[in-house]
Amino acid sequence: MEGHEETTPGDAGHEAAHADIYGEDGVIRPAFVAHIGAAIADRDTLTLRKDVGDLHQSEVGDLLEALLPEQRRTLVDLLGADFDFSALTEVDEAIRLEIVENLPNAQIAKAVQELDSDDAVYILEDLDQADQDEILAQLPFTERIRLRRSLDYPEESAGRRMQTEFVAVPPFWTVGQTIDYMREDNNLPDRFSQVFVIDPSFKLLGAIDLDQILRAKRSVKIEDIMHETRHAIPATMDQEEAAREFEQYNLLSAAVVDENERLVGVLTIDDVVDVIQQEAEEDLLRMGGVGDEELSDTVIATSRSRVPWLLVNLATAFLSASVISLFGATIEEMVALAALMPIVASLGGNAGTQTMTVTVRALATKDLDIYNAGRVIRREVLVGLTNGAIIAIIIGVVAALWFQNHDLGIVIAAAMVINMLAAALGGILIPLLLDKLGADPAISSSIFTTMITDVIGFLAFLGLATWWMHLG
Amino acid sequence: MEGHEETTPGDAGHEAAHADIYGEDGVIRPAFVAHIGAAIADRDTLTLRKDVGDLHQSEVGDLLEALLPEQRRTLVDLLGADFDFSALTEVDEAIRLEIVENLPNAQIAKAVQELDSDDAVYILEDLDQADQDEILAQLPFTERIRLRRSLDYPEESAGRRMQTEFVAVPPFWTVGQTIDYMREDNNLPDRFSQVFVIDPSFKLLGAIDLDQILRAKRSVKIEDIMHETRHAIPATMDQEEAAREFEQYNLLSAAVVDENERLVGVLTIDDVVDVIQQEAEEDLLRMGGVGDEELSDTVIATSRSRVPWLLVNLATAFLSASVISLFGATIEEMVALAALMPIVASLGGNAGTQTMTVTVRALATKDLDIYNAGRVIRREVLVGLTNGAIIAIIIGVVAALWFQNHDLGIVIAAAMVINMLAAALGGILIPLLLDKLGADPAISSSIFTTMITDVIGFLAFLGLATWWMHLG
Repeated sequence: MEGHEETTPGDAGHEAAHADIYGEDGVIRPAFVAHIGAAIADRDTLTLRKDVGDLHQSEVGDLLEALLPEQRRTLVDLLGADFDFSALTEVDEAIRLEIVENLPNAQIAKAVQELDSDDAVYILEDLDQADQDEILAQLPFTERIRLRRSLDYPEESAGRRMQTEFVAVPPFWTVGQTIDYMREDNNLPDRFSQVFVIDPSFKLLGAIDLDQILRAKRSVKIEDIMHETRHAIPATMDQEEAAREFEQYNLLSAAVVDENERLVGVLTIDDVVDVIQQEAEEDLLRMGGVGDEELSDTVIATSRSRVPWLLVNLATAFLSASVISLFGATIEEMVALAALMPIVASLGGNAGTQTMTVTVRALATKDLDIYNAGRVIRREVLVGLTNGAIIAIIIGVVAALWFQNHDLGIVIAAAMVINMLAAALGGILIPLLLDKLGADPAISSSIFTTMITDVIGFLAFLGLATWWMHLG
Repeated sequence: MEGHEETTPGDAGHEAAHADIYGEDGVIRPAFVAHIGAAIADRDTLTLRKDVGDLHQSEVGDLLEALLPEQRRTLVDLLGADFDFSALTEVDEAIRLEIVENLPNAQIAKAVQELDSDDAVYILEDLDQADQDEILAQLPFTERIRLRRSLDYPEESAGRRMQTEFVAVPPFWTVGQTIDYMREDNNLPDRFSQVFVIDPSFKLLGAIDLDQILRAKRSVKIEDIMHETRHAIPATMDQEEAAREFEQYNLLSAAVVDENERLVGVLTIDDVVDVIQQEAEEDLLRMGGVGDEELSDTVIATSRSRVPWLLVNLATAFLSASVISLFGATIEEMVALAALMPIVASLGGNAGTQTMTVTVRALATKDLDIYNAGRVIRREVLVGLTNGAIIAIIIGVVAALWFQNHDLGIVIAAAMVINMLAAALGGILIPLLLDKLGADPAISSSIFTTMITDVIGFLAFLGLATWWMHLG
């Protein structure tokens, strides 16, 4: 989550470190992992402190993921207070839990105090209630209150992701006073890009970017250069919506306010980048029929997350099967139909997936709306007909030659055009409908689209064959 | 791309504007679009200046996308110098080109001078060489050189995305001198979060975050608080790789250097956020069998981008068809096989897609590497067997009851387990292999995975049926 290495001037060894530990392909070097593994086996704390202690949190995270589970635990034990807990925000949830659950709550409580509040929350939120309470009880009062407040906001809300450390000044201060305050106060956040302006009750009045402060004369009043915070984010706002605000208005940080408009924290772009990545990943996985999965999940967890989708697919597959079974007599008369059937279904399915992918993505980015829906639907239908015609000609000719049967070529070509049209309509209308009904189109569009292309494909092909060639 | 509205203090009308123009669903209000449309029809320049002139560039972008093509052109004409060209960086490429190509090059040249260099490049890079040259020829010398240099870097490189405006100071200055310089120089970039430190030949020595400057006493020397820039980005680096640096080290901005380590520009997180979005979108679209498509593309462009994928699919579908045709005699004897065939293929395809989606994503984020590949392959095989067993039992029982045939139930259940195993292996090994061969696994994994599940599925089901039930 947060990275503060930019704020430790003089730590020049880092560039070299990066080149040392990562290979050309961006993956951590086996030699480095082996070296650390050997040091862990030798319980060589000195080497570990030297070679791991100086790494960036994300590098430690990559190292942890490359080690074996026992090595991870031993490394954390050996490093003790030198282990940078923020590295835990960089690893898979399963690995984080595995490491944290192995540590005594007293040690976690101590480590958590060193972290920015958002990182602390990130680690605490996955623990069960009892452990959370025990750890929080061991923290100083103000810290406990702050973390508790963040944890009380709903999961995936701005309040959960915010940092509760920020710089706030009253509106009547001058730029000079503000700069002097920053020079003297040792309690500033490690890194910040905005100063907030508040009234005595912590009500948010405005904000100033640091470059604005640096441009202004010392005598200028804060209230004269602050801008009203147009993008204050309610703590209960969903993180995805907050991320969209950041994207639309190119924010670097934004104030987070409670229900009384009081400043409670700050959301920063680096957390938002994580959210954007996460949400894009979620859409991709959902379209592939996978839930919130991580590579480190167990077989049981993975199987449990994937089976429901397969069961729905089983139901729709039985539907296609019953369509086919209606034409048993036709197939018995001409077995070539059975061989060609899957071609019609497969191409329809792929064309439907193309349209559906574009539609789902455009809905997620709010690019598809009432202003262009009509035009996009029209375009998809025309593309479906065009591509249908191209594929139909090829498949018609090949089928006619293969089975030495003109009629079969005509039938499969016609069925292909019909199915590509169904694919285009299904691929765009199903996600639009699901979105309208408040369902996530990424989750279920794919199954319904292929259901339609399978059913229409089989129906068109076998139905046309029966009628045109007088079979069955 | 760049957003500077945070740097225009006192512009308080904005929050109200946002609430006015967007509905609850985050889509621009039809009433607002209609209002602007009417003003365009009336050529009511006053209203347009008032109601569009004050909007944020991204809001103007959304408005442009909601208008009809003729309205867009007229709006830009009517606003003239009041039209914020940076709004063009917020719309689809097709719409941008349509607007820009309608304008005289002289007007574009004038507008481009008002833009940050990265926005200017973003608009210029899509134009053809002749127009680019004509526009550049009308710019002042230094501006021309800067833009030309950015445009000379390869597409999608850091050099293309960088901003050439930055603040740079010599190492021997004090914090006080630096602050005074920023107070007096009117040529500063609109927005910045770092000050770079350079030698007389523009060679990059280090950087300082603004909060570090604000914390330091006036007498402190710049070289004493600067940190060596560990993340200087070569201008030729691919934008995706640069984005990964930003993500890994939580950077807000980074120096871009030429081949002689001289500072040529700065890459900022807001541009990187766009890159991250774009790359995630690319992966999603590729997995759905779609190229770099935009909603505003024409029917021909869309069809052309999707047909190749369908042709490959046609070839693999013929492969499955020939497998089926091997078993013509078997199917003739028991037509129920034809009805059940697609179930085996469909479930295998879906299970394969699940595994493949997870694998492709993990490869893209570098989460899947030599350290966990073995474990992940083992897990996928076990998940395939587990889910295969679950689905096999259900489908076996249903098929046996449906067709009143025990043997058919046993055959389809066994075929299902075999196919789910093939799906798991194909879903993980194909993307891994493609990645190893230097191909993009997002593009072609899907087609090969379903090819394998189709072929293995039909072969296992029809083959087992022939052998076990002595058919054919």
